[in-house]
Amino acid sequence: MTPAVTPAESPPAAADLIAVLTARGQSLGCAESLTGGLVCAALTDVPGASAVVRGAVVSYATDVKADVLGVDSGLLASLGAVNAEVARQMAQGACRVLASDWGVATTGVAGPDPQDGAAVGTVFVAVAGPGGCEAVELRLPGDRAAIRRAAVDAVLDLVRARVDAAEEGRPRRG
Amino acid sequence: MTPAVTPAESPPAAADLIAVLTARGQSLGCAESLTGGLVCAALTDVPGASAVVRGAVVSYATDVKADVLGVDSGLLASLGAVNAEVARQMAQGACRVLASDWGVATTGVAGPDPQDGAAVGTVFVAVAGPGGCEAVELRLPGDRAAIRRAAVDAVLDLVRARVDAAEEGRPRRG
Repeated sequence: MTPAVTPAESPPAAADLIAVLTARGQSLGCAESLTGGLVCAALTDVPGASAVVRGAVVSYATDVKADVLGVDSGLLASLGAVNAEVARQMAQGACRVLASDWGVATTGVAGPDPQDGAAVGTVFVAVAGPGGCEAVELRLPGDRAAIRRAAVDAVLDLVRARVDAAEEGRPRRG
Repeated sequence: MTPAVTPAESPPAAADLIAVLTARGQSLGCAESLTGGLVCAALTDVPGASAVVRGAVVSYATDVKADVLGVDSGLLASLGAVNAEVARQMAQGACRVLASDWGVATTGVAGPDPQDGAAVGTVFVAVAGPGGCEAVELRLPGDRAAIRRAAVDAVLDLVRARVDAAEEGRPRRG
């Protein structure tokens, strides 16, 4: 028996993020490469996600990163698609193209083969939002599915941390 | 214990479709609404998917369907986002925005609440390709996860049927 398709079940981090951003009236968009739609699928698995999630651009092909998300084509030509600056520009592109307050991005190598000189498991996740834009480099172990799953978890953790930090930086009333 | 995120495992239909389109040198892009990225995630779960999959636009918010995918905004305003013509225009938009030979689209109501006058479980899937564009209406049972999962399966089945039909219509050598 081959298993039927199993949809992404939303991790607790996805539901928490949707709840926090709903309370704030802020929106989110995704720019995904190696995760191929899993980040947005995890977020939209949460009932009520439409109050927050604008959508996603899955830029699986390198030229879609430039043509749809506006990532610098010279950067892609010189350094390839797997680096921190591409991740940052993807996250910023998500905010711009999807008209969202927050943008999250993933780019990396899920395998089975290396890409653009980067080893399997090399992943960059990025978040753009009111406080600026940040990227984090990861070296993820495991097979293709494990690397994709860990990249989803990592970018949800990163955006949640940035969202919390933005809240702390707000002027308080009273 | 809460379960960790489970990525979409690709159904056999996804692997078959990637194999067929790889052999033909044809590409595919996705335009997703209620599935939220699950179609593209299922396809990119297949090793070697990058030979075929250009990416996806997840147009979860209605205005993203118009602004990014080019769906007619008057149509969206008058009939809402859950109908066959919106599904067709999303599939055609995927081909155009992602520069792909084939475009697949999903729009519908996963619940828990009705939307645009359509009941939970009302789903339209569409395929655009060399032979034109086709949409199919579905009434899917079950909860939010089951409806999303069945919509993924349905659109993969539809595009595979269209791909096979296009092959049969080709002039044969010899």
